[in-house]
Amino acid sequence: MGDKLTHINEDGEVHMVDVGDKNVTQRQAVATSKISMSQAAFDAVKNGNLKKGDALGVARVAGIMAAKNTSQMIPLCHPLMLTKIEISIEPDDTTSSFDIKALVRVEGKTGVEMEALTAASVTALTIYDMAKAVDKSMVIGPTQLEQKSGGKSGDYNRE
Amino acid sequence: MGDKLTHINEDGEVHMVDVGDKNVTQRQAVATSKISMSQAAFDAVKNGNLKKGDALGVARVAGIMAAKNTSQMIPLCHPLMLTKIEISIEPDDTTSSFDIKALVRVEGKTGVEMEALTAASVTALTIYDMAKAVDKSMVIGPTQLEQKSGGKSGDYNRE
Amino acid sequence: MGDKLTHINEDGEVHMVDVGDKNVTQRQAVATSKISMSQAAFDAVKNGNLKKGDALGVARVAGIMAAKNTSQMIPLCHPLMLTKIEISIEPDDTTSSFDIKALVRVEGKTGVEMEALTAASVTALTIYDMAKAVDKSMVIGPTQLEQKSGGKSGDYNRE
Amino acid sequence: MGDKLTHINEDGEVHMVDVGDKNVTQRQAVATSKISMSQAAFDAVKNGNLKKGDALGVARVAGIMAAKNTSQMIPLCHPLMLTKIEISIEPDDTTSSFDIKALVRVEGKTGVEMEALTAASVTALTIYDMAKAVDKSMVIGPTQLEQKSGGKSGDYNRE
Amino acid sequence: MGDKLTHINEDGEVHMVDVGDKNVTQRQAVATSKISMSQAAFDAVKNGNLKKGDALGVARVAGIMAAKNTSQMIPLCHPLMLTKIEISIEPDDTTSSFDIKALVRVEGKTGVEMEALTAASVTALTIYDMAKAVDKSMVIGPTQLEQKSGGKSGDYNRE
Amino acid sequence: MGDKLTHINEDGEVHMVDVGDKNVTQRQAVATSKISMSQAAFDAVKNGNLKKGDALGVARVAGIMAAKNTSQMIPLCHPLMLTKIEISIEPDDTTSSFDIKALVRVEGKTGVEMEALTAASVTALTIYDMAKAVDKSMVIGPTQLEQKSGGKSGDYNRE
Repeated sequence: MGDKLTHINEDGEVHMVDVGDKNVTQRQAVATSKISMSQAAFDAVKNGNLKKGDALGVARVAGIMAAKNTSQMIPLCHPLMLTKIEISIEPDDTTSSFDIKALVRVEGKTGVEMEALTAASVTALTIYDMAKAVDKSMVIGPTQLEQKSGGKSGDYNRE
Repeated sequence: MGDKLTHINEDGEVHMVDVGDKNVTQRQAVATSKISMSQAAFDAVKNGNLKKGDALGVARVAGIMAAKNTSQMIPLCHPLMLTKIEISIEPDDTTSSFDIKALVRVEGKTGVEMEALTAASVTALTIYDMAKAVDKSMVIGPTQLEQKSGGKSGDYNRE
Repeated sequence: MGDKLTHINEDGEVHMVDVGDKNVTQRQAVATSKISMSQAAFDAVKNGNLKKGDALGVARVAGIMAAKNTSQMIPLCHPLMLTKIEISIEPDDTTSSFDIKALVRVEGKTGVEMEALTAASVTALTIYDMAKAVDKSMVIGPTQLEQKSGGKSGDYNRE
Repeated sequence: MGDKLTHINEDGEVHMVDVGDKNVTQRQAVATSKISMSQAAFDAVKNGNLKKGDALGVARVAGIMAAKNTSQMIPLCHPLMLTKIEISIEPDDTTSSFDIKALVRVEGKTGVEMEALTAASVTALTIYDMAKAVDKSMVIGPTQLEQKSGGKSGDYNRE
Repeated sequence: MGDKLTHINEDGEVHMVDVGDKNVTQRQAVATSKISMSQAAFDAVKNGNLKKGDALGVARVAGIMAAKNTSQMIPLCHPLMLTKIEISIEPDDTTSSFDIKALVRVEGKTGVEMEALTAASVTALTIYDMAKAVDKSMVIGPTQLEQKSGGKSGDYNRE
Repeated sequence: MGDKLTHINEDGEVHMVDVGDKNVTQRQAVATSKISMSQAAFDAVKNGNLKKGDALGVARVAGIMAAKNTSQMIPLCHPLMLTKIEISIEPDDTTSSFDIKALVRVEGKTGVEMEALTAASVTALTIYDMAKAVDKSMVIGPTQLEQKSGGKSGDYNRE
């Protein structure tokens, strides 16, 4: 990788970098997050999960919508027409936490790392919102990129 | 605290809970997040910080705007007229990471925990976006509520 | 009721009417909509309803978010800080349709009829989106106001 | 047509379906809605129609903007770069109602049924907003897809 | 007036200033803008003005919606529940230009200068968009605050 | 150029014009604006410029985000996937004003004049917001298109 921030030009000013010359390729990114909570909150969310209007279902919808809204939220992100968004949320009983995974795909000129990371973050934030009446001390993170493919800068796989 | 998810009614359906009977009081919340990165990325962001169009300045703006947009992002959050938003970002040279703190205030019927947490998260995501050309392995978190005051449910201070 | 469109001034120009002198009162509105479909689509949606990521759950979330976004969608609606939003969706087996009811509350200077109608409409549209792979001939409506209370213009109850 | 909801995967979880492998083709959809009202409201709207700041003009603008905003409103809709949006509103004197027709076109990987239906719905809602001081009992609907062309699933024409 | 930028704190960081202690008062602002164009464009816009779907009508709607969206556009603006928005557009035949005036009111803790200025600007931009097929050399401005009342900082009237 | 408003069809109704048959080409637009102010305000903004959380940095971010949001603000603008946005702001000491230049690029079926003009306008509005505590009499404008290339209608260069 380089050692320069691409969003800052030679005059030190921020800008949305030119991707006009980049190729349109199939690009994918996978990001993960985690939210850890008390046993009582964990049980309430899991139980809610079995019902009609479940907490995790709301969080999944929020994550999907956030992915589509990323370029409005992150100032220097390019707008993109995402072709696939999938959020999975797995309970981890041993640590009373939920593991969140967001997968985003696009056929475009820039990668979708930010879309995947934003989706995972907003999914976690929404779970926090749903459960905060039970537990305010929940902790979100680590939130990180797991995998990325497509584009000139090559693939990335977290070790 | 209770043991029930307030956003799910007796039929198990999600709804935006009624806060009509709650009092309008001065409410405040403080949330923190952290983003850890390679030494090269840390240096690039810190140096950018000294210039006109600095990376951390962009992240701060993104966090402030996200706080105002929280009720559009988190499905069951009430709309609120925030009266103050402040984001601070401190470099931690020993761990090549940035500590993010978001403080939000409102005079309203519901708390602003979600606004503070969302602001801190989006600030961190924006730093990731600014520096991802240098380092894709950056890690965000822990993101958590530090302090909350105002409202019937009482104050909260993380121990 | 009057016989004039309040959003058009004496020069015939549209404007957002002045509600500065109106009282802040507790206001509520209930609107309904309906979506009718083939038996196959109805069964698919109802079955989905029993699962983790159910179609009706997504529609309910979309309706709630639309209520909060009404003043951005309907040009002359006043922005409002809604205090309660509840969407219910009931299957009607005899007609293979779903009955949608949206209830919205606010403590404010204007009524929330548009918020309730918008929430009911977007809930129906989202069910259409979820089921359109099975049936494209679904019909939405009637969408109408059922009840309104609060404010100087008095209560309204559909007969 | 199939008998499965495409937005729900094999685990029963909602997701935004992958359209990466679909072809980019010219796609079009036409949807209609209707709003019926009292004679007094109908006259007021029609008269407004002749003036500078007419009610139907506002509704048309709202419908066009809603079409562009569909993927932010309907959770599992793909973002699309619409190439044409046209809304027509015809008064029907015999039933004191307005017939709304929305036509949307795109060159893309998914159809624009939801964009046309959303545009027609928001046009109707905006007419309701403009005329609700005169008549609160107006009824919106039926809202339905009339025609769709382009894409692998073939054309659709309501009979 | 002071000589300091209120949005920058003592550490030189931007923030959304605390208005929690300010009084809720009736506040109003009036801003103006102007768009000058060729005779051909001026005539086309004026003629359009007489028709059903007139250019100035669209611009007026865009200006009203922009006023409501100001806090999402201008990073450090406080969200406000506007109670009145009125846009007037007057043709000036002698200079083939249109004079735009935006009036905004709120009962709140901060002024609405930015809302009025944003409304006037977006109204002008929309006229540009409507007429740019006829004339690309149109000029927007001066855009300025004319009057402001309410709030501790006192009234302002441009001389 | 023609003498007709393309956004108004033969029935006199506004619509978003069909660009489906236009070619995808590399398109660029440059727009400028200007904000003039008192010496005190000018000095405060310029000094802020040297600090960490500088006023001009916030304005630049706001302008970039506005460019991406243009099709949501200007009713008949087509949505576009911008590939480059750059805002420059130059102080002019002799007139205590700032010169704003916005450059936008896209590979698409329509030009980006509105995106460049919107970016320049919102940049100027944000500077106003940052400095209005010092000077409320600031004047924005002229805001105008400087250059445009790409597309069938040919290049434009302001003389």
